[in-house]
Amino acid sequence: MPNINPERLLADLKALRRFGAHGHGVVRLALSPVDIEARRWLLSRMTEAGLDARIDGVGNVFGRSRKPGPALVIGSHTDTQPTGGWLDGAMGVIYGLEIVRAFAESRDACELAVDVASWMDEEGTFAGYLGSRSFIGEPVDEAIGQARNREGVLLADALQAAGIAGQPRAQFEPGRHQAYLEPHIEQGGRLEAEGKKIGVVTTIVGIREMRVTFVGQRNHAGTTPMAIRKDAGSALIAFAHRLDSEFRALARSETVWTVGRIDLDPGSLSIVPGRGDLLLQFRDADAALLSRMEAKLAELVRAADAVGPVRVSLAPADAPVEPTVMDADLQAHIAAAAEAAAPGRWIRMPSGAGHDAQVIAQRLPSGMLFVPSIGGVSHDFTEDTEADDIVLGCRVAATAAASILRSISSIPG
Amino acid sequence: MPNINPERLLADLKALRRFGAHGHGVVRLALSPVDIEARRWLLSRMTEAGLDARIDGVGNVFGRSRKPGPALVIGSHTDTQPTGGWLDGAMGVIYGLEIVRAFAESRDACELAVDVASWMDEEGTFAGYLGSRSFIGEPVDEAIGQARNREGVLLADALQAAGIAGQPRAQFEPGRHQAYLEPHIEQGGRLEAEGKKIGVVTTIVGIREMRVTFVGQRNHAGTTPMAIRKDAGSALIAFAHRLDSEFRALARSETVWTVGRIDLDPGSLSIVPGRGDLLLQFRDADAALLSRMEAKLAELVRAADAVGPVRVSLAPADAPVEPTVMDADLQAHIAAAAEAAAPGRWIRMPSGAGHDAQVIAQRLPSGMLFVPSIGGVSHDFTEDTEADDIVLGCRVAATAAASILRSISSIPG
Repeated sequence: MPNINPERLLADLKALRRFGAHGHGVVRLALSPVDIEARRWLLSRMTEAGLDARIDGVGNVFGRSRKPGPALVIGSHTDTQPTGGWLDGAMGVIYGLEIVRAFAESRDACELAVDVASWMDEEGTFAGYLGSRSFIGEPVDEAIGQARNREGVLLADALQAAGIAGQPRAQFEPGRHQAYLEPHIEQGGRLEAEGKKIGVVTTIVGIREMRVTFVGQRNHAGTTPMAIRKDAGSALIAFAHRLDSEFRALARSETVWTVGRIDLDPGSLSIVPGRGDLLLQFRDADAALLSRMEAKLAELVRAADAVGPVRVSLAPADAPVEPTVMDADLQAHIAAAAEAAAPGRWIRMPSGAGHDAQVIAQRLPSGMLFVPSIGGVSHDFTEDTEADDIVLGCRVAATAAASILRSISSIPG
Repeated sequence: MPNINPERLLADLKALRRFGAHGHGVVRLALSPVDIEARRWLLSRMTEAGLDARIDGVGNVFGRSRKPGPALVIGSHTDTQPTGGWLDGAMGVIYGLEIVRAFAESRDACELAVDVASWMDEEGTFAGYLGSRSFIGEPVDEAIGQARNREGVLLADALQAAGIAGQPRAQFEPGRHQAYLEPHIEQGGRLEAEGKKIGVVTTIVGIREMRVTFVGQRNHAGTTPMAIRKDAGSALIAFAHRLDSEFRALARSETVWTVGRIDLDPGSLSIVPGRGDLLLQFRDADAALLSRMEAKLAELVRAADAVGPVRVSLAPADAPVEPTVMDADLQAHIAAAAEAAAPGRWIRMPSGAGHDAQVIAQRLPSGMLFVPSIGGVSHDFTEDTEADDIVLGCRVAATAAASILRSISSIPG
């Protein structure tokens, strides 16, 4: 069995953390100068590990194994949220790097081919999942020519400025690439709450993002009697309250829904709002349940619009994301590795967050494993995981990677 | 009886409208270059009308009558909202100017003393009611040194830039100033709905402005189960819904309340809001009812905070404004003038909007009269009043002004 080196693993995670360090957390937005510096560092570490590594035309850092035969891709992302944690994404990439080194040092795993990837812009600074979408052959040139970050910088210009526009793009290699493994922090509190060390991901949840718009009439808040108002704000509040109780009735315990934003226009204390926008997201691993929630939402919008006097309408705020089931065989390999390293201290669980694995699963059998997040916190400077849990997760990933590759090699190609 | 000149009245209103004209409406924010231009134009018109006029140290345009004896002040404001109407404020000032001219041309009213005022910043671009507060002797130097507009410009610097800082300030003259009359558009739809032409204002409503703050915990909207969330947004929605039904139970038909603004932090679709702010205003002419509503609000905040897990707190968003009763004698003079000009087509009514009259009423018996607003619209470019209604309102104001001054003169001083 390959043996990962805990000191080397943690040292590399800490080295990567220095790029964009911000107190306990990290600010390393996709294609920012510090993100590019981090990619160059990662490139050199991959090269030192014996990989044929390069930064591709969308900014993916892709380290290709020089070993013959079927290959496993291990990856995640090294970009962060605007107030990011040090392990979100970074951990899975460094796991891949450490597993390559551990395999090379191992007598019985030294011939196994592992490619390592850091996918560009998982967090959606410009265009979410850009790197993994490019890898599986989705057309991304339209996004490159149109997507902008919050400062209004065009993605194409940012790639140009980083000196990577026009480079060849890493591509999925049918036949050679056999599976994808993405280790990640949980980002929630379930493993911690249940005293478990490893989560074997069954499904990545589907997501619906909707905008409900209320159009009434802007008016003076002192001179307009309640009886003749068309108050978009009070219509929005009544609607949101009703929606919450209707969703509660439909939901199962894992279902989540969030009103993340409310805008009242013009937003003045002394003006009856003429327009209101409510931005809603809901997630579940069950596609049928998502559809029922969507239908209920549409029904409530129609009913509120019919009652009046405020007009109510519904539109998607982003394209729907369908639930993605993780490959059953990969789940079994990860589960066996988890049981060996931490008997009884692992569970199967859905992922409530989105990951590059949901993109790559369209072309490659994909699997994910989670390690615990302290306090369930993520997308925050205080995000953290115990060092022992980080090391244990890498051991499980290494064992699973070896067993996956061996099972593939034993299948006649 | 004095005869106002409708053509001259409407021509001056249209001349004033050109300063900051914006389609059908006007943008003439207090102390903006176009507001200062308008004040200089008004100054020259007042001077032509025989008044001893000047722009004072806070920007009030004050035209003092050269006639001896007790004086009536007629005024309003010529600054506007960011998207203002052409008559809001402007009409009352030009009424005053026209009444001075009509009195001068009248055999029996030519000795009556009328001062005319355009009060600075009624709309609160920097500091609401600045001009009328200065006039009655309220200390305003602290506001001048601290208040800023939305662009962050300090009031003191704006006065300096306009070249009026350091000028003497127009002051209430005890003994000489006997009453204040403010004609204004209604800004609501009641006169129109009831087919009336004149509103005799009984009371200017009191106002409470409050901020309710919800503090929960910001979290990932995909990985945080509903059961362990501290969602400031959903707590805010539940609270706002409850508040609305409780206020509905307390209110009388004239009571108004408005949730004008809701902020959820950080305002992202995929993050459970960690903080929410709800901005609430309520108005009524009855001080006791305002107190009951305030007590109910505080009770609901305490109850929501006690239930948890989101912390709920309450703070004033602005200083409370108590209801201001208009002088009964002035109401009688206005009512008699209205009955003479438009028999049976006038009503007594409260003002739902705030006006300089509520400030000046602290030192001088004050009265207001309203003319109809088309569609009840105000604080909007489309605000308007029929020309016939504008003229009728000025006739009523002129008749009332003459009878007020005659009744004062007949009282031994």
